[in-house]
Amino acid sequence: MEKSTEKGNGVSGGAAASRSPMALMGSSRYENEELDTGMRTAETMLRLVPMALCVAALVVMLKNSQSNEFGSVSYSDLGAFRYLVHANGICAGYSFLSAIIAAMPRPSTMPRAWTLFLLDQILTYIILAAGAVSTEVLYLTNKGDAAVTWSAACGTFASFCHKATTSIIITFVVVACYAALSLISSYRLFSKYDAPVN
Amino acid sequence: MEKSTEKGNGVSGGAAASRSPMALMGSSRYENEELDTGMRTAETMLRLVPMALCVAALVVMLKNSQSNEFGSVSYSDLGAFRYLVHANGICAGYSFLSAIIAAMPRPSTMPRAWTLFLLDQILTYIILAAGAVSTEVLYLTNKGDAAVTWSAACGTFASFCHKATTSIIITFVVVACYAALSLISSYRLFSKYDAPVN
Repeated sequence: MEKSTEKGNGVSGGAAASRSPMALMGSSRYENEELDTGMRTAETMLRLVPMALCVAALVVMLKNSQSNEFGSVSYSDLGAFRYLVHANGICAGYSFLSAIIAAMPRPSTMPRAWTLFLLDQILTYIILAAGAVSTEVLYLTNKGDAAVTWSAACGTFASFCHKATTSIIITFVVVACYAALSLISSYRLFSKYDAPVN
Repeated sequence: MEKSTEKGNGVSGGAAASRSPMALMGSSRYENEELDTGMRTAETMLRLVPMALCVAALVVMLKNSQSNEFGSVSYSDLGAFRYLVHANGICAGYSFLSAIIAAMPRPSTMPRAWTLFLLDQILTYIILAAGAVSTEVLYLTNKGDAAVTWSAACGTFASFCHKATTSIIITFVVVACYAALSLISSYRLFSKYDAPVN
């Protein structure tokens, strides 16, 4: 069901384009190319922004530990926060690599579009899960849970909870960026296919 | 950038199809329609399966409470499990409604494709987050966390933890179904658009 690659090759590409209603409107092909350059720049930026945010969230959480007269607590004591650090690390690395690939002007091939689409989806799920479990653990450290005798810890470790909140909020901004990136990469992939009959 | 709706109307649709390379291959248009009917059936099934699974996960979790000589614990004592029940309820309702819409043979319009796409994405995120936070809470009830003085509860409430595990595993099967549904609905939406130049 893959479309004939009418945009890939020169002469037959031009012939195919002249049949389309878009090409009848004067300079629309050039406008399309300009639009595409703009879109590629936007996509590259949208991949660099989460890279910076992931590094920020990672650093804030990595440095998050507090000691006082009641004892000490560190991010590494809580599995969810350790997972948040790992997820942000993976996400920063992937965002950097994918920004390089997205910035390249060469025509997008089918395997490249599929790879970016699948990895964007997986990263969105990973970073969303990290944000969700960390929020739950932060909620429990704030409120505790009487039924299973878990005590609230944020009363004694206020600074720890404050930094964890900052890191989690940054992570959710990353989630929003990745939701947008998933949309862009699915557009780039599936617009290459023919629409189903119905 | 939306494609001309060459499949939507009769006569001009046939003329447009005869120019496409697919239509030159004999009966491929009929094969396409058959493929599409098959795909629509598959999509409807893929929406009914998570409906059944959501109801199952919901019922297992709703009935999950245990009392013994050490006290009593119920799913409603833990925020994450309450969220899991709500998420499964919403997901079951949406799966049912979207299955009806997906089963209709009338041509898919742009607003319908966008609505299904966005709702599928949102539901995937909701149910994934529910599965993730419940897994984290289940992990904590199993292992506890010495650093923040949370004790393990599964030693005394084994049956409670067992049922929670069952419900969470079913929820992750729903997540897998919804990941597949997101893929299908993004294909249905973005295949209606022209591919970008690069």
